[in-house]
Amino acid sequence: VTDKLSTLCDLGELAIVERIRRRLPQGDDVLVGAGDDCAVVRATSDADHDLLLTSDAVIEGVHFDTGTPFDAVGHKAVGRVLSDIAAMGGQPGWALLNISAPADMTVGALDELYAGALALAGEHDLAVVGGDVAEAPALSVNVFATGSVPAGKAILRSGARAGDLIYVTGTLGGSRHGRHLSFEPRVAEGLLLRPFATSMIDISDGLATDLAHLLRGGNVGARIEAYDVPVSAAAAGRRPFDHAMTDGEDYELLFTIAPVSKDDFLAAWNAGTGTRCTCIGVMNDNKGIAEYVAEDGSPASMDDHGFSHFD
Amino acid sequence: VTDKLSTLCDLGELAIVERIRRRLPQGDDVLVGAGDDCAVVRATSDADHDLLLTSDAVIEGVHFDTGTPFDAVGHKAVGRVLSDIAAMGGQPGWALLNISAPADMTVGALDELYAGALALAGEHDLAVVGGDVAEAPALSVNVFATGSVPAGKAILRSGARAGDLIYVTGTLGGSRHGRHLSFEPRVAEGLLLRPFATSMIDISDGLATDLAHLLRGGNVGARIEAYDVPVSAAAAGRRPFDHAMTDGEDYELLFTIAPVSKDDFLAAWNAGTGTRCTCIGVMNDNKGIAEYVAEDGSPASMDDHGFSHFD
Repeated sequence: VTDKLSTLCDLGELAIVERIRRRLPQGDDVLVGAGDDCAVVRATSDADHDLLLTSDAVIEGVHFDTGTPFDAVGHKAVGRVLSDIAAMGGQPGWALLNISAPADMTVGALDELYAGALALAGEHDLAVVGGDVAEAPALSVNVFATGSVPAGKAILRSGARAGDLIYVTGTLGGSRHGRHLSFEPRVAEGLLLRPFATSMIDISDGLATDLAHLLRGGNVGARIEAYDVPVSAAAAGRRPFDHAMTDGEDYELLFTIAPVSKDDFLAAWNAGTGTRCTCIGVMNDNKGIAEYVAEDGSPASMDDHGFSHFD
Repeated sequence: VTDKLSTLCDLGELAIVERIRRRLPQGDDVLVGAGDDCAVVRATSDADHDLLLTSDAVIEGVHFDTGTPFDAVGHKAVGRVLSDIAAMGGQPGWALLNISAPADMTVGALDELYAGALALAGEHDLAVVGGDVAEAPALSVNVFATGSVPAGKAILRSGARAGDLIYVTGTLGGSRHGRHLSFEPRVAEGLLLRPFATSMIDISDGLATDLAHLLRGGNVGARIEAYDVPVSAAAAGRRPFDHAMTDGEDYELLFTIAPVSKDDFLAAWNAGTGTRCTCIGVMNDNKGIAEYVAEDGSPASMDDHGFSHFD
């Protein structure tokens, strides 16, 4: 029995890999899990499906503070790739976890990190089939994940047209107060939206920045009713709307619906989920321009920077 | 035009992503490359194929020294996953590159890293379809890659049987003298071996350690003719054989061939490649035991530790 306070250095690489391997779930579609040069998986009826590929990193001091509970680090690492798959309308498939950790990290901490990662992955039918553990000066987790959609049915950032209604799930802002660690990726909602959404993105950098991606992708503009933007109770402070626009890491879905699909979409949404969904505006022909208006029709002011690395 | 001496911090995340995106090759099977929430790829006739998934990290100060040319870092990062795919007898598919870099890394350095990564990927028909750039205290590159094999045809670590002949490609040892940065992954050789090899692994931790994986996997033992082990000219020093056994990072293929297949294998090998291939021993029933013998039949001594993290 390994002491939870043993360090990764005490345990050694082979024992670490074996320890992780025993925890990973095995499904019928996983022919070879962790422990060979590659994982081997079998996709059923794949000829009718496209494969989604995504990866994300969470790095100590950048995406989480030193001292963050390790299960929350694992949750966030897996949650970010699940949110990417959700934003394509995808069904999660398989994942690999690359952990870079200081040699003095304890085995108990590694177990906690995996517990957080595997719990969330399991909830969303994402099978973690392997990965890598390497020594590094600071803790970071790189997650790679696959998903699938029926051929040609991925919801891209580029499909919005003038006249499409703009919706957002949940509430925005205040992620720094803890939600960036505990969010639930909107996988079921993304699947529900697949027949309806004309474009979709997950809000990782803030509504302002991520909406700009949809405008560029679709070569359209947008008018946003600022007072309709659903602000999180966590977005405390003087300018809750600014938080909602720019905090980022909401991991909510921002998507567009053609007016002709609106009634069917709302019926399916209300029958399929209890998740909040709010119409916040409409796409128009002012290419590349997002106009935010207050209740009286005057321009709503806001800080125009979402979160960006290297700024 | 961006100055090559600009830093990633000067450029900002969006411009970095756009810069990378323009460099990535687009193939017919890549429906959506970098720039959406996920890459979308279409696998042809996938129902008859299994998917291989692998990931590896190269970390500054662990897998390469500070000051290593950036193109060599990119080459090594991609080379490691290609070697994993080769060791399964796989055809490379798609890859994502996650780069974690200090904010003062220059754009020229990032370009060089990508140039090294993309050149090697291109040689082996691995399409880099996206990834992530994030800020971190030290440089590291996590690469995720897929490959494919006809259904059920992956060469595992576990297939060796008593009597199988043990072969190794190329020469071993001396990787620390630069070969760990410049190796050519044995992708073509891995494909050539698919109809013949009963088990296979790539030598990343040293012949001694990686052979032990095949013994454990197949529940067999091995007798190795130590004087037949092909030692690299780079394995200089007092005990070249020890280097060959334990240096690791050779990225050569270690594999087994059933005696009945030997003639067909050698004919296919000699017709298909000019790469050196050496028989170094035979599997036997001494489960888990690797016996190394000198030319006179006496035991050959060696240091018994391959490279391992956290030791």
